[in-house]
Amino acid sequence: MAVVEGKNGVNFKTKRGFSKKLKSGLKETLFPDDPFRQFMNEEKTSRRFIKGLQYFIPIFQWIPTYTWRLLISDFIAGLTITSLAIPQGISYAKLANLPPLVGLYSSFVPPLVYAVFGSSRHMAVGTIAAASLLIAQTISTVADPVQNPTLYLHLIFTTTFVTGIFQAALGIFRLGILVDFFSHSTITGFMGGTAIILILQQLKGIFGMQHFSTQTDIVHVIKGIIAYKHEIRWETTVLGVIFILFLQVTVYVRNKRPKLFWVSAIAPMCTVVITAIFVYLIKGQNHGIQTVGHLGKGLNPLSIKDLNFDPKYLSPVLQTGIITGILSLAEGIAIGRSFAVAENTPHDGNKEMLAFGLMNIVGSFTSCYLTSGPFSKTAVNYNAGCKTPMANIVQAILMALTLLFLAPLFGHTPLVALSSIIISAMLGLIKYEEAIHLFKVDKFDFVICMAAFFGVPFLSMDYGLMISVGLGILRGLLYVARPAACKLGKIPDLGLYRDVEQYSATTIPGVLIIQLGSPIYFANAIYVKERITRYIQDEEDNGGDTVENIILDLSGVTSIDITAIGGLLETNKTLEKNGVKICFVNPRLEVMEKLIASKFVDKIGKELFFLSLEDAVSAIQYALSSVKRNRSEEIF
Amino acid sequence: MAVVEGKNGVNFKTKRGFSKKLKSGLKETLFPDDPFRQFMNEEKTSRRFIKGLQYFIPIFQWIPTYTWRLLISDFIAGLTITSLAIPQGISYAKLANLPPLVGLYSSFVPPLVYAVFGSSRHMAVGTIAAASLLIAQTISTVADPVQNPTLYLHLIFTTTFVTGIFQAALGIFRLGILVDFFSHSTITGFMGGTAIILILQQLKGIFGMQHFSTQTDIVHVIKGIIAYKHEIRWETTVLGVIFILFLQVTVYVRNKRPKLFWVSAIAPMCTVVITAIFVYLIKGQNHGIQTVGHLGKGLNPLSIKDLNFDPKYLSPVLQTGIITGILSLAEGIAIGRSFAVAENTPHDGNKEMLAFGLMNIVGSFTSCYLTSGPFSKTAVNYNAGCKTPMANIVQAILMALTLLFLAPLFGHTPLVALSSIIISAMLGLIKYEEAIHLFKVDKFDFVICMAAFFGVPFLSMDYGLMISVGLGILRGLLYVARPAACKLGKIPDLGLYRDVEQYSATTIPGVLIIQLGSPIYFANAIYVKERITRYIQDEEDNGGDTVENIILDLSGVTSIDITAIGGLLETNKTLEKNGVKICFVNPRLEVMEKLIASKFVDKIGKELFFLSLEDAVSAIQYALSSVKRNRSEEIF
Repeated sequence: MAVVEGKNGVNFKTKRGFSKKLKSGLKETLFPDDPFRQFMNEEKTSRRFIKGLQYFIPIFQWIPTYTWRLLISDFIAGLTITSLAIPQGISYAKLANLPPLVGLYSSFVPPLVYAVFGSSRHMAVGTIAAASLLIAQTISTVADPVQNPTLYLHLIFTTTFVTGIFQAALGIFRLGILVDFFSHSTITGFMGGTAIILILQQLKGIFGMQHFSTQTDIVHVIKGIIAYKHEIRWETTVLGVIFILFLQVTVYVRNKRPKLFWVSAIAPMCTVVITAIFVYLIKGQNHGIQTVGHLGKGLNPLSIKDLNFDPKYLSPVLQTGIITGILSLAEGIAIGRSFAVAENTPHDGNKEMLAFGLMNIVGSFTSCYLTSGPFSKTAVNYNAGCKTPMANIVQAILMALTLLFLAPLFGHTPLVALSSIIISAMLGLIKYEEAIHLFKVDKFDFVICMAAFFGVPFLSMDYGLMISVGLGILRGLLYVARPAACKLGKIPDLGLYRDVEQYSATTIPGVLIIQLGSPIYFANAIYVKERITRYIQDEEDNGGDTVENIILDLSGVTSIDITAIGGLLETNKTLEKNGVKICFVNPRLEVMEKLIASKFVDKIGKELFFLSLEDAVSAIQYALSSVKRNRSEEIF
Repeated sequence: MAVVEGKNGVNFKTKRGFSKKLKSGLKETLFPDDPFRQFMNEEKTSRRFIKGLQYFIPIFQWIPTYTWRLLISDFIAGLTITSLAIPQGISYAKLANLPPLVGLYSSFVPPLVYAVFGSSRHMAVGTIAAASLLIAQTISTVADPVQNPTLYLHLIFTTTFVTGIFQAALGIFRLGILVDFFSHSTITGFMGGTAIILILQQLKGIFGMQHFSTQTDIVHVIKGIIAYKHEIRWETTVLGVIFILFLQVTVYVRNKRPKLFWVSAIAPMCTVVITAIFVYLIKGQNHGIQTVGHLGKGLNPLSIKDLNFDPKYLSPVLQTGIITGILSLAEGIAIGRSFAVAENTPHDGNKEMLAFGLMNIVGSFTSCYLTSGPFSKTAVNYNAGCKTPMANIVQAILMALTLLFLAPLFGHTPLVALSSIIISAMLGLIKYEEAIHLFKVDKFDFVICMAAFFGVPFLSMDYGLMISVGLGILRGLLYVARPAACKLGKIPDLGLYRDVEQYSATTIPGVLIIQLGSPIYFANAIYVKERITRYIQDEEDNGGDTVENIILDLSGVTSIDITAIGGLLETNKTLEKNGVKICFVNPRLEVMEKLIASKFVDKIGKELFFLSLEDAVSAIQYALSSVKRNRSEEIF
């Protein structure tokens, strides 16, 4: 605890050492949640070990309190996502130029790993469309998937391994801070935009079309549908519309009467089973109703020996691994976080990165390619009522069973039923009321949201996301480039100093009190100087007295840097030339440390620092009254 | 002026309209200097016109008070930079694969344009090395400079035109805010690093070598010198060392006795003239002393009809134009600003961009290629004692005379003399004391400085600059991602609430007062929540009473967004569950507007907002005393 000293009660002594400052800075930046406290504070070693285990391996947090009731929910959800994982796995594997079975393998091992290490309750693990396309495009340039499928496959496994290592490293070095830059507005817009993309993609299944755009943007998809409009089958379209209506009705029922939540939870699975039987009975393929198709049998073969680190291919493999790693993290974490916020369940960016990394590393050893938390699957998982990552274990077990025995049966599921399930899930994720709310409260947030909402379907998922995040960062930079300053006055009866624009506070003639915003640093050093000058000019233009004293209230300034300190010195010099005296009120600890270290305090003089605005004003009034008693009596 | 209302004197009414907020936001962001005030406030139209003219065309600001004394200084500086412009123009034109005369033309027209529109006093206009190389590399891919020199030349002019339009647009749209992101630390490091590059480049002249690395990084240059070490001539090396010593002595004299500033000002010109005569007399070329060489005659031909907007070449032309535009602005403005700060002379980023743009547009019409404020020339200009942009007019006139008559005479200047002048100028720009100062005051600033200082010579000028600016932006983002919060206590005798770490302030049992940093928004919404939770845990761990009330002091918070408001609501919900009551003190105008618009105030309740910490503490104590009178008596 420091001792108050200095002429005006300002403490100039407290100065922390470099290591202390660094430690506190690192802790605030990377460990704001103080992750180790929960077990480091335990006295008993055994309890400390258990708590540590629970911290590092989230499954130990929820498994001890797991109940049959939860299992039923998770089982239904797991069953639903498995029935979705089969056609999704196959179609995304095709996007990546891979054998369909690799897509199915990827819904067996990675979900198991995620269930152990993942912190999100609603994440459903699987392959993702955007990354599948991206991998294919880059790796195809060095290994032809048709002429040299083995090399191509091995390079894909290697890419997955690289992605895993990269993601795990981000998690270990606690760069979850990156996730903080996905704002609520970005996520709302991104979810809405991605929902539109996925609805468009599912139109293929609804219309029962054979040909469809390989690109995901709205313009290409609509052009593609128009080009092949003769392929549209009324049979599937009618079925699709009926299924969507049915599912939407169950959602409506759930919203109206929350106790009937199970109606909408089992609806997708019912749709799958009933339609599979129905299509089987009416021989749907004769009516143009496509089904998942024939599936082979057998579990994942090991692929750890297939990883190929030949320097010839290393550069594209590293590049693709890192890019898709970021993309899939951005998608997976944004989605996981949005459901976690909606349901107030835990979500830890760092743990998620580590879990994603581990599941991709293990996946690359067992014939899986890049997995993440895909949007559609996670949304279906959530809608199907999943409660814990157990849904992923269910998915893995069911997928294993499917791979071993049931594949031919699931092969009869009509694609139109799966498309309807996805569309129905997506419709609930276009939150127009949220956008209206944003528009009302904050126009910039609304723009950030719309950038993602329109960017995703019109450009691409990654561009839409990047533009939206970029706008958020730009906004952050503008905050720091132009920290809001305001002019303070005294509220007569209360003796408090407050913004004159906000309260009817009276200013003191000849004295200008300015509260500076935070932080003050290079990007706004010139601005702060110009702003102070303008306050003085404004004061004099509006017929006020000549400004003779300026009080800068630094209470709200949390950081300052060399450029800004130089700027303040310059400001002081300029003002002094014009006969204006400056003084400073209540610099905070970190700011004071810098002001002392840079000799600013010595140059300005300790007597110009005050602990409160009242002290500074009194000192100025005292000085004034000594010099021109008459005038000061007239005013006060 | 708003009226104070609300239960605790907090004003909930003041809410500005969207257009007012937007206007004030745009003004703070783009027009903090309120540029039009100086002439819009004039009553007489004629005076308003004159002041407006002076604002938009800076030459009218300084030309009315121009004196013979200033002209002498400017003439000497102009003469010195002209003697530098000739070999620099020739060698940089060679870098760009252009005829040498184009390099000389570029020191005639653009300086005239800059002298009229430029706001910097010390800028010397000319071509720059990095951009020359970059242009050549990109345009060569579509037009071969050897096989099709005319097309190549015309595309270069077109690129220059594009650069000019781009730079002028940045200036007109007042994006000078970009320049705010070049911090003092970045500029210090960048100047030092670039000085090292240029010293290395000048070793060619000092050693009298024929072959030299075409790359600028330190590794390649040293390798190149070692590879061609047999070319090093002792004659030029001895001359070079003597010249450098001579010039450094004159600098030393100037520093010791400022009245003798003219000694160092005329030294470079003396060196040029004396050595030219000396080398001419001793027939230096026989001793391996290289001179500038033969130069042709004639002024700039018009090239406006040569601009080539063929769509075939448009893409590389646009790309190169914009990239070199940014690069040359970054160099030119960083340099102009650093001299302006050192000498406290005017410098306006927006006007500079416009001036650079205009000089490149006019330049592209008159057979000039990309010009900026090159580092070496500006430094020499400054060292030679320039006072106003008149030095550029002198340069232009002398260059015109040179082009018309004197070229053959200047052809005798030995390269070693010019190299010595540049090296001598550069030595003064490696500010090691500044780096030590940075190290002492702010380690992060030191890292930003060193990134530029080592990045420039080891990587390249643009990468060094980008890394350093990037670190600065990262730091800005960290400021906003982790706004410093602190725990407040009451200083007993003064009744003020201050940081307990900074002052010996006592906390109130069961009440936690936290001052939040600014801004609170999406990138730190989760952090703020976690930080508050940790404060409570810390309090309870340290054997304090159970926290029952939290007071959040928002005085220092200048902005808030939707995500952060959501975070505060969540925090409130979580705390309520744990029996902790929260209240808010003094939100500022902008924050209050958002809190009202988002219904936060309605959800929380107006009675939980207070105007001062004292009010909030009193209210809590009153509530406590009503409920458990015994306990409250014991404490207070």
